[in-house]
Amino acid sequence: MDAARGFAQGEFEHRLSRAQKLMDEAGFDALLLTSEPDVRYFTGFLTRFWESPTRPWFVIVPLSGKPVAVIPQIGAHLMGTTWVEDIRTWAAPDMADDGVSLLGDTLLSLAGEKGCIGLPMGLETHLRMPLADFFRVRDSLPRMTFTDAAPLLRALQCVKSEAEIDKIRAACAIGSAAFDMVSEFAHEGVPLSTIFRRFQMALLEKGADWVPYLAGGAGLDGYGDVISPAGDQPLMAGDVLMLDTGAVFDGYFCDFDRNWAIAHASEAASSAYDVLFGATEAGFAAARPGETAASIYHAMDAVISVAGGDGGGGRLGHGLGMRLTEWPSLIPADHTVLEPGMVLTLEPGLEVSPGIIQVHEENIVIRENGAEWLTRRAAEQLPVIG
Amino acid sequence: MDAARGFAQGEFEHRLSRAQKLMDEAGFDALLLTSEPDVRYFTGFLTRFWESPTRPWFVIVPLSGKPVAVIPQIGAHLMGTTWVEDIRTWAAPDMADDGVSLLGDTLLSLAGEKGCIGLPMGLETHLRMPLADFFRVRDSLPRMTFTDAAPLLRALQCVKSEAEIDKIRAACAIGSAAFDMVSEFAHEGVPLSTIFRRFQMALLEKGADWVPYLAGGAGLDGYGDVISPAGDQPLMAGDVLMLDTGAVFDGYFCDFDRNWAIAHASEAASSAYDVLFGATEAGFAAARPGETAASIYHAMDAVISVAGGDGGGGRLGHGLGMRLTEWPSLIPADHTVLEPGMVLTLEPGLEVSPGIIQVHEENIVIRENGAEWLTRRAAEQLPVIG
Repeated sequence: MDAARGFAQGEFEHRLSRAQKLMDEAGFDALLLTSEPDVRYFTGFLTRFWESPTRPWFVIVPLSGKPVAVIPQIGAHLMGTTWVEDIRTWAAPDMADDGVSLLGDTLLSLAGEKGCIGLPMGLETHLRMPLADFFRVRDSLPRMTFTDAAPLLRALQCVKSEAEIDKIRAACAIGSAAFDMVSEFAHEGVPLSTIFRRFQMALLEKGADWVPYLAGGAGLDGYGDVISPAGDQPLMAGDVLMLDTGAVFDGYFCDFDRNWAIAHASEAASSAYDVLFGATEAGFAAARPGETAASIYHAMDAVISVAGGDGGGGRLGHGLGMRLTEWPSLIPADHTVLEPGMVLTLEPGLEVSPGIIQVHEENIVIRENGAEWLTRRAAEQLPVIG
Repeated sequence: MDAARGFAQGEFEHRLSRAQKLMDEAGFDALLLTSEPDVRYFTGFLTRFWESPTRPWFVIVPLSGKPVAVIPQIGAHLMGTTWVEDIRTWAAPDMADDGVSLLGDTLLSLAGEKGCIGLPMGLETHLRMPLADFFRVRDSLPRMTFTDAAPLLRALQCVKSEAEIDKIRAACAIGSAAFDMVSEFAHEGVPLSTIFRRFQMALLEKGADWVPYLAGGAGLDGYGDVISPAGDQPLMAGDVLMLDTGAVFDGYFCDFDRNWAIAHASEAASSAYDVLFGATEAGFAAARPGETAASIYHAMDAVISVAGGDGGGGRLGHGLGMRLTEWPSLIPADHTVLEPGMVLTLEPGLEVSPGIIQVHEENIVIRENGAEWLTRRAAEQLPVIG
C-alpha cells in the first residue's frame, strides 16, 4: 500500500518508443485513441470524469514525437499536469462540431493526407466517440486508411512494467486487508446489500481510491451467478458468501474474490472449495513463460474435471491492469504466449448443485521462472464465519 | 431513501410502447442497443459487470413485441430475472465469432432483410461493441440500413417517470446526508485524498449502492478544475473545499456538489459563493415548461455577468438520470424545450482569481408550474468548517 503514485516520465517514454517501433512495423502513421485506458496509457491522464458520456477525448500517437491531446477545454488544466505538451482543445459540448474538425486537422498534420491510422477495432475494444462523428472524420479524410490497432495495443499493454505491477500489488493488498474485515460484519441475518456496502467501505478504509466493481452472491452452498447486484435477502446459516472486487489504486485494478461459509459449511460446499483451491494451484503451476493462456485453462480444467466439473469452455481467468478485465482470456482458443510481466487472474468455477456455483479468483504475475502471487492466497479450506 | 427498488412491469411496458410509437414515426424496424443505460432502460438489467470491457451485450427493440436480448451466457441468469423473455446467448468470449452471427440472425428475423435499424450514433453516444464486429454485422446484412436513433432515445429518456424521479431523489437524499458528515472529517491538515475516501464511505453509509463518480478540489478561495483526482496535499486555512458526487441508488445518479471554507473564508471566496448561489436561484426560476435549456443558461449567465464573471459559453448544467450526465446541455446553442419530468443539474461556475474557480451544483426536476429541488438546497452562505 506504499506503492508510489504516478510514474516517472521514463515510463511514458518507454511506452511511446515501444509503440512507435510496433507502429513502424505495422505501417501505421498514427494511432487514434479514444478510451480511458488507452488515453491514460500514453499520457498519465487520470480522472473519473470519463463517467460522463457527454464529451469525447482523443489522443493521437504519431510515428515520431510525443502524443498529442485533442480534448475538451474542461480537461486542459489536468492534461497540462502530464508530460503531454501539445494539447489542443475545443469548447465542448459543441453541438455543431464536437471536436470533429480539430481531430481531422490534427490527424492530417500528424499522419499526412494518405496516412494510415491505427485505432482499436477488435475484440474487447470500443470506439468512445459518437459513431456518426467518426464517420464524419473518416469521410473528411478520404485518402486516409483506418485500420485495427487492437493487436498492437494488446501487445504493448499485456506486459506490465515493475511500476505497474507495484500498483496492482498495492490494489491486491488493499483487497486482502478488506477481505480480512468481512468476518466483522457478515453474520447470519445481515442483508447481502448491507454486506456489499460495508465491504466497499472497508476497501476505501484500507486505501482504495475508488471501487469501480463489486459483485458477489450468497446462497446454500453457493450462488447463481457472479454478476448480480446485491439484494436485501439476509445471510442464512449454511450459505456460502462470495465477494469479488475490483478496487483501484492509482488507476490499477485488483480483481479477486473470497468465499466464506456462514455459521457452518456442508460437505458439498467444502469439497467444491477444495477442488477450486486445487484448480487455482494447478493454474499457478502452469503459468510460466512460453506456455499459453490455453495451457493455464487446461491445467485448471483438468482438476475441475476430475471432480466431475467442467470448465465448459467458459473463461477461467483473464488479463488485469488498467481495466478490470484485459486480454488474454484463459480459454481453449486463446493461444497467447505467456511472457514475464503479464498480470492474470486465475478464476476457476464449479457447479455445486444444479444452477449453483462456486468461483475462486486470484491474481498473479508471470516471472522468468514461473508465476508470483499478487494476492495473499485464499485460505486452504473454506472459512466458516458468522 | 425509502424509494422502492426495481420497477413495476408497467414502467417497461410504457417505455416500450412510447419507443415503438416513435420508431414507427421515424421509420425504424428495430433499435439496436449496446450501452449499459440503453440496455437497462428497456430491460431493467442492472449489473456492475459492464466495468469489464470484454463482452458486448445487445438488446433489439422490435417494432412490435418485447425487447430481445442477445447476450453472453454469463448474463443469462440475471437477464432471466427481468421481464425479457426472448434471451439468446452465446459462450463469450468467442474469438472467432463473438455474438456477430447471433446478432445478425436476430436483426434479420426481427427487422426483415431490408430493415431499417436505429442505433445511437449522435452526440453523447458510443457504440459499445468492437467497431470491426459492427462492420461485420453491417456487411453481412447489405440490404439493411443503419441510422442514428440518438434523437429518439433522447426524447424517451429525457422525461423521467415518477418512479425514476423517486430514485434520483433518493440518490440526492443520500448525497445530502453524506455532505452533512463532511464537517466531521474535513479539517486543516487533512489530505484531500483522505477526504475523498471518507466522503465515499459516508455516501455508502447513508445508503448509496455504489459511488461511480467523485471529483473535487481545494485551494485558496477555490480550485483549478472540477475533474482532477485527489492529491495528498493537506487542507489549509482559507481553502475552499468542494466535493462533487455521483452516487447511485438503484441505478440512478445524483450529481451535485457542496463548498466549504476551511477555518475562515476570505471576502472574495464568500462573494463568489453568493454570486453562484444567486445564479442557481435564477436558473431555478427560469426552469419552467416551454422554456429551453438555453434560457436556463442565460438566466444563470446574467447573474454571473453582473459579478464580472462569464459563463463563457461553457456548460452550466445538464440532464441527469441513469447517466451522470445526459442530454440536454445548458448552453446557448441547446434549444431543447423543457418538459415536465425532465431532471437537470444547475451548475454555474465563477472565476475567483486567475485560474481559480468555484462551482455550485444542484439537481431539479421540471414540473407543470416550474422547477422542484431534488437536492436539499445548499447553505445560503459559504459554510466555514474545520
